Order: sequence, then structure tokens, then C-alpha cells
Amino acid sequence: MMNAFNDLMAFQRETEALAQVAGRLGWDQETMMPRGAAEQRGEEMAALEGVLHARRTDPRIGDWLAAAKAPDAAGARAVELIGRAYRRTALVPARLAAEIARVTSLAQGIWAEARARDDVALFLPTLERVVALIREKGQALAEGGDAYDALLEDYEPGATGAALAAMFAEMRPRLVSLRAAVLGAAFQPAPLQGRFAPEGQLALARQMADAFGYDWGRGRLDLAVHPFSSGSGNDVRITTRTNEGDPFNCLYSTIHETGHAGYEQAIDPAHLLTPLGQGVSMGVHESQSRIYENQIGRSRAFTGWMFARMKDTFGDLGLADADAFYAAANRVHDGHIRTEADEVQYNLHIMLRFDLERDLIAGRLAVADLEAAWNERFLKDFGHAVGRPSQGMLQDVHWSAGLIGYFPTYSLGNLYAGCLHQALRRDLPGLDESLARGDASPATGWLRARLQQFGGLRPPEATVEHACGFAPSAGPLLDYLDAKFRAIYRL
Amino acid sequence: MMNAFNDLMAFQRETEALAQVAGRLGWDQETMMPRGAAEQRGEEMAALEGVLHARRTDPRIGDWLAAAKAPDAAGARAVELIGRAYRRTALVPARLAAEIARVTSLAQGIWAEARARDDVALFLPTLERVVALIREKGQALAEGGDAYDALLEDYEPGATGAALAAMFAEMRPRLVSLRAAVLGAAFQPAPLQGRFAPEGQLALARQMADAFGYDWGRGRLDLAVHPFSSGSGNDVRITTRTNEGDPFNCLYSTIHETGHAGYEQAIDPAHLLTPLGQGVSMGVHESQSRIYENQIGRSRAFTGWMFARMKDTFGDLGLADADAFYAAANRVHDGHIRTEADEVQYNLHIMLRFDLERDLIAGRLAVADLEAAWNERFLKDFGHAVGRPSQGMLQDVHWSAGLIGYFPTYSLGNLYAGCLHQALRRDLPGLDESLARGDASPATGWLRARLQQFGGLRPPEATVEHACGFAPSAGPLLDYLDAKFRAIYRL
Repeated sequence: MMNAFNDLMAFQRETEALAQVAGRLGWDQETMMPRGAAEQRGEEMAALEGVLHARRTDPRIGDWLAAAKAPDAAGARAVELIGRAYRRTALVPARLAAEIARVTSLAQGIWAEARARDDVALFLPTLERVVALIREKGQALAEGGDAYDALLEDYEPGATGAALAAMFAEMRPRLVSLRAAVLGAAFQPAPLQGRFAPEGQLALARQMADAFGYDWGRGRLDLAVHPFSSGSGNDVRITTRTNEGDPFNCLYSTIHETGHAGYEQAIDPAHLLTPLGQGVSMGVHESQSRIYENQIGRSRAFTGWMFARMKDTFGDLGLADADAFYAAANRVHDGHIRTEADEVQYNLHIMLRFDLERDLIAGRLAVADLEAAWNERFLKDFGHAVGRPSQGMLQDVHWSAGLIGYFPTYSLGNLYAGCLHQALRRDLPGLDESLARGDASPATGWLRARLQQFGGLRPPEATVEHACGFAPSAGPLLDYLDAKFRAIYRL
Repeated sequence: MMNAFNDLMAFQRETEALAQVAGRLGWDQETMMPRGAAEQRGEEMAALEGVLHARRTDPRIGDWLAAAKAPDAAGARAVELIGRAYRRTALVPARLAAEIARVTSLAQGIWAEARARDDVALFLPTLERVVALIREKGQALAEGGDAYDALLEDYEPGATGAALAAMFAEMRPRLVSLRAAVLGAAFQPAPLQGRFAPEGQLALARQMADAFGYDWGRGRLDLAVHPFSSGSGNDVRITTRTNEGDPFNCLYSTIHETGHAGYEQAIDPAHLLTPLGQGVSMGVHESQSRIYENQIGRSRAFTGWMFARMKDTFGDLGLADADAFYAAANRVHDGHIRTEADEVQYNLHIMLRFDLERDLIAGRLAVADLEAAWNERFLKDFGHAVGRPSQGMLQDVHWSAGLIGYFPTYSLGNLYAGCLHQALRRDLPGLDESLARGDASPATGWLRARLQQFGGLRPPEATVEHACGFAPSAGPLLDYLDAKFRAIYRL
């Protein structure tokens, strides 16, 4: 019996190692690969994905699972995670998986063209097909249960559409109201203006990663079109980008990715290359990037230090003082684009997508009616209209890639970050003194000890509850946002 | 029957794609990988090597080979190459292959320590073991034939120890004599002296790669401790290094690697990810790097252009004129280290190693007597003594890595380069006019058309003979070296 467990874990370890290789190729593709290599790389990746798929569906896994006796709780959790993945892979017919891969691969190019041309009609037939296929996948996975809930399991195991809807129902009216209050306030902070050399931004980005304890001995920072972090264990790399007119984009995307990467770097080495050796879910992962980026990185104390470093690098910033800089870093402004949204409005973008994609999968909303539904909802929550589809339903890549069930994890991450921040401030009353010196190590240390080190040991919600000492809810995030933004906007 | 051929080629194509992935990881390891990732990377590489080994020994290959009917000459050659690799893998017992992997992995660390401490005794027991294992491998591969010849097949298919020994016997006395004449000449060129900023060296290195037609759209240049090129087809990357006191090291290593990479980039796309899609042997590969580096890159015409570019970048070089620069770039100097040797002495270093390793495998030389044999031979050919073992038998990594049969391909490459250069000058009488403008494209075009595009289509020697129009021999290289160095040294 111990042999079955050991054989399973040894087999899984090689699979995890090969998955890391695939991740490294993905990193290379976005940072280093010469452009002429794209087609050949596609073939190389397909070969590696073929190897991974064969391993993940290897019938020996079923035999080992049936016989395995785990020696401890971590082993039992590993067996549970391997078993879940194995059963889910078996539930999706190979024909359907192949068709999803084929259609979504083509769909992303069609979506990009539709977005560039602001042409919804060009995208609709493809989106119809994607939604139908993903719905079919959800139904196969659900075994008679709810298809959307079954899809959620890929991103946030244990989450359900109903539970998320209840949380979001609590958040939405307060955020709509806060948004209106802030944008209608008499005082409006001045934005940061000027031109900021890329080299200076990158030097500052490295200081930001340092402040949050990024381990350069097990990672590196490079440029990418869309910032991301990549890898687990001892090779966790981050990327950023520079925009000469907007240094906050570079600095806060670096802090955000440092949050993701710091989580991976902090996981107990005993879990390396096991199913527990990665962040437990998209939502918990996002809570680590968001608490670094927003609750800590956009705090008054930390931005005071950042303001001094910015002046060291770029000279006078045209802002009166550290308070003005803090307000500029937290400025709320009208816009249509999720990825450019501030803390107040971001979750409204997500709730819109969550409600629509859930209705699409349930068949309550037809793809043909999606644009009208999007625009109506946007006007209701944001108070202004969508001008063109590239500002609306064509703005995100996710649906074309078949990623339905992914969006709500962003807001769940924000909600978890709110809870973690409340608990962290409870335990670290002197944190702001450190942050004002550019030292986030007490916060990082708290997160490592209470959450990050455990990796996938506990289910997502239990991971956050263990760290906080209380069950997660929307209250802490909403209270934090209210207090912070009413103060900044002098309401 | 066609099905067996098609199945075999499809299977092989995925294997080749996975081998490219392994190559990319190797590149990453030497250029980008954070140092803390080394151990995890070892596990990732081992998992991928395991996948490759399983594919290369898959019994279906035997069945396909037995049934395959190739539709054309290229297909027949591919089947031949797959069959040879498959039979050779089968001839080496798995136990022996695993033991070689284990021992050589440890041996490289022991060798590095022995070299650092100049302690031959520390390395001898390990080297005994390596030689015994590689001899056993050679005997297994030889099936009653010569073990060293069987080992050569891994690096230079078709070469034999006897044929190489005959070629080298022609080269050695002429090179020993040329070396003595040059080092005893009244005129001795001044070396290039000064400090040269790394940024300037790298900018020039890019110009050198441009001059030889390196395709940046399918490659890139990075820094590495030991320069190398990596990859096939549309992703062929090169590396270099900088030494502030010696810009020639950076520039000529870049040109050398551009030769290797240019060969890979020029192979007919129809051969991509087939057994024909790579350079056909180490010797032919080295002929491409060497003809770029030496016959062309160190020619009077090309160095004239390089001199002007160096002055553009670094200002006055303290050399009188382009003739003095040409002489400095070709300066012959006493030394013990193969990798620092000039065109005149390099092959003497190789012949020494070839004779010794061939005797080791044949059992004519005991590992315990290797140091004395090395030092005696060195004194005889180079006219001065080995001071310490790190300048002698401990200087190269090859033997600790089990690479016995590799060394002679360096000199074979030089010999082939001599032949190719003779043929190229015959066909391109105006080449120097282009080289003087920093344009090697006529030479590159000739090599692409006559040799590089074919990849592995023909056996190594036939590849060179097809390009030259005559059978390769040592004469052209020796005549070239005599003429060039007697002119430079005013003999």
C-alpha cells in the first residue's frame, strides 16, 4: 500500500517537473524568444503538452489512487488533489478537449482582430461556439450538477456561483455608491504627469520588489508586453513593462507580480514539485498580489517612501507633497477598461462579467444579446455609456480563450486581501513605521508564516480563514475602501 | 508500408521537438537561470531526459524501421539515421548507460576541484573509472570491432581512428615546424593592448554577427561564461563573453558561434525537426565556425574592416595601421591552454589529446601514466614544459564528462575549413573586396548553397566533398597556414 503511494508521488513529481518546463517555455516565449521562432515553438509546446496529457491520463494513476495509503495529512491532501485532477480529466471526452483546444486557439486571433476593428459581429459566431463547447465541458464535469460551478473548480476549487453571487450582492451597492461619491467629490486629486525614462522606472521597480522581499537568487525581472509571474519553487520569475507617461503602471505591476511570485517562493520546500507546491487557487493567489499592490503598496505609509524614491530618480514630480502623491497613486477616474481600473471600480468590472458569463453558461443569456446586456449593465454601475465594443465586451481575452469561471477569482482575491489586511493590521500595529522606510518585511513575514508557506495544504477558503482567524467575507474590504477613499476625497 | 514510414517520422518529429525543448532549457541554464534554481532545474531536466530516453528506446521504432519504405532520398537518409541511433542505444546496456551518467556527473565536480587545486591524484581514481566505463561502452557499440572507432561515431559518423591518425601524421610535422619558425622569427607582432568597455565589445559583436549574415529574427545574442550556440531551425541562439583586456575574445567567439548558428539557420526548412534538420557532425559543424572565425574573420581583408570599426568604437588602438592590427589578430604566442591557442598551435593540442585518449581506450596507456605521457608529448611538440597539471592534463572538461572521441572533431573541422576555404576562394575570386567592406555574404552564400542547406542529408565527409568538389585532405589547411603565417612573420 505504501508502494502505491510512493509510486504515485514519484510519477507525479516527474509530471510536476515537466509542467515547470512548460512554464519556463511560456516565460521564454513572452520575454526572450525571437519572433521568427513562434511556429516552431508551437510545435515544441504541443509535443510537451502531449507528454503531459499522456501522463495526466495514465491509467496507472487510477490503480495507484485506489491502493494508496498516505502517511500523513500532506500526503492525504496530495492524493486528494491528484485524484480530483485525474477524475476531472477523465470526465471530459478527449474529442471535446481537442475541439476546445482547436477552437480557442483560433478564437484568440479572431477576437484580437474583432477588437482591433471594433467589430462584434466578426467575433459572435466564434464566441457562440466557444460558449457552447465550454458549457458542454461544464455539464460533463458537473455530472448532473451546475455547469458553471463545475467550471469554477478549475480556478477556485470549492467556490460556487451562488456563494459568489451572494458575496457580490453585498459588495455591489456599496461600491456603486462609493464610486458615485468619489467621482462627484468637490476635491479631485491631481494626476502624476510628465515623462519618466524607462531605465529609471526599471531601477525603481527593482527597489519595489526588494521592499516586498522578492528573492532574486531564485528569480529575475524582465520586460513583457503583459506583465506576469511564472514558475514555482526555486525559479519564480516576474515581468513588468514601462510606459513613459505612467510610471505607476510599471511600479504597481511589479509589486503585483512580486505578490504572486513571493507566494510561490515562500511555499515550504517540502512541497516542491508536489501538488501542494503551488498557490492553492487563483483567488488566493490574487489575494497575495492585491494585498501587496493595493492595501500595502498604495498605503499612505508606503507611498511616502515611494515618493522619496521617485524624486531621487526623476527629480521634482510636480506634486506638492507626499499626501498629493498618495492621492495621485489612488486616483479614481472614469474609464471603461478593467485592467486600468482603480480599487474602487475594479470589482464592478468583475461582477458585470461574472453575472454575464454565468447567464451565458446557464443559457439565460444568448451570445447574440451579450453586447446589449454588457452595455446596459455598464451604464447602470458606472454611470456612463460604452462608446465602442473594444471598450466593452471585446476588451478582455478571457472568453475567447475559453476561460469562463476565471473572472470572479479576481474579485475573490480582492475580498480575501481585505480580510488578510484586517488581520495583518490587527497583529502588526506598528506596520506603518516599517512601510514608511520602504520595508514591507513585517507584512511579508506575516503572510509567509500564516498563509504562503502552506501552498496547497488546505482548500482555498480554509487557507485564508487559517491565516485570518476568521471566516472570509466582503465586510473588511468594503470598510477599508470606504475609509480610505472617503479620506482621500475629503468626504 | 508508407504508414510505417509516416508513423516513424511523426513520432520522430515529436522527439526532435522535445529535444529542442531540452536544448532551450540548457540555454536558459547558462544565460538566464537564477543561481538558486540549479537543483530544481536538475530535476526538471532529468524528467525531460527520461521522456526522451523512453521515446528513443520505444520498441515501436524497431517495428516501424522494419516496415518503413521511404518515398525519397531524404526519407531514406532519415530512416538510416533513426535506425543507427536506435541500434546504438540498444547496444549499450541500460545499467552501463546509467552508471556512465552517474559517474560522469560526479566526475565533473571532482575534476573542477582537482584543476583548482592542481591535484592530479585527486582526479585519477575518477578518471580510471570513467575510462573503464567508456571503454566498456565502446566495446559494446563496436560488436567486436574497434572500441575507439565505435565511440567516434557519436561525434563524427564514418570517421575511424586509423584514418584520423593518418591525416594527423601528415599535419603534425609541418605544424611543429611552422610553430618553431614563427616563434623564432625576428619580427614579432605587437599585441593589442588597453582596456575595452564591455558595452563597446558587445555592440561590435553584433556588427560581426551581422557581417556573417546571422538572422536576428530567428536568434539572439546573450552573455555566457563559456560561449556556445544552441538550437536548430528557427530558434538558434548564440552567446559570447567580454574580457576588458581582450576584445578579440568577444569578437572572435561571436564570429565562431555565428558560424555554428548560421549552419543551423541555413538548413532547408523541409528538414525542420527531422534527423536531417541539424548539422551533420561535430567536425562539419566546427568547419563552419572555424572558416568564419579564422579563414575569413582573421583574413587581412576582413580585419581591415574590423580595425576601422574598433577605432570607431574605442578610438586609437595604439597600433600603427591595419597591417599591424591584422598581425595582432593573428599573433602566435607560447602557452599551454588549448582554448587560448592560435591557428598554428591549436591542432597540435588536439593531436596530443587524440593520441592519448585513443591509447587509453585501447589499453596501451594506463591512466596512472597519463600525466607523464601528456607532459612528454607537450614538451616535444611545443618546445616548453608543462608547469602544473591545470596547464596540462587537467585543463579540459571533456574526459571527466566521458566525452572520449570528441577532441579529434575540432581538428577535423579545421581541416574541412581549409578545404572549404580553398574551394570558396576558387569560386569567389573577388571575395576580399566584400570582406574589406565588412560583408561576408558572398562566402556565407557559397557555404549555404553548397553545404549548410543540406543539413544531415549526406554523411559528413561526403557533405564536405560535395561542397568542395574534391575529397577532403590536410593539404589545403597546411598550405594556407604556411602561406599566411610566413607572410605575417616575414619569413
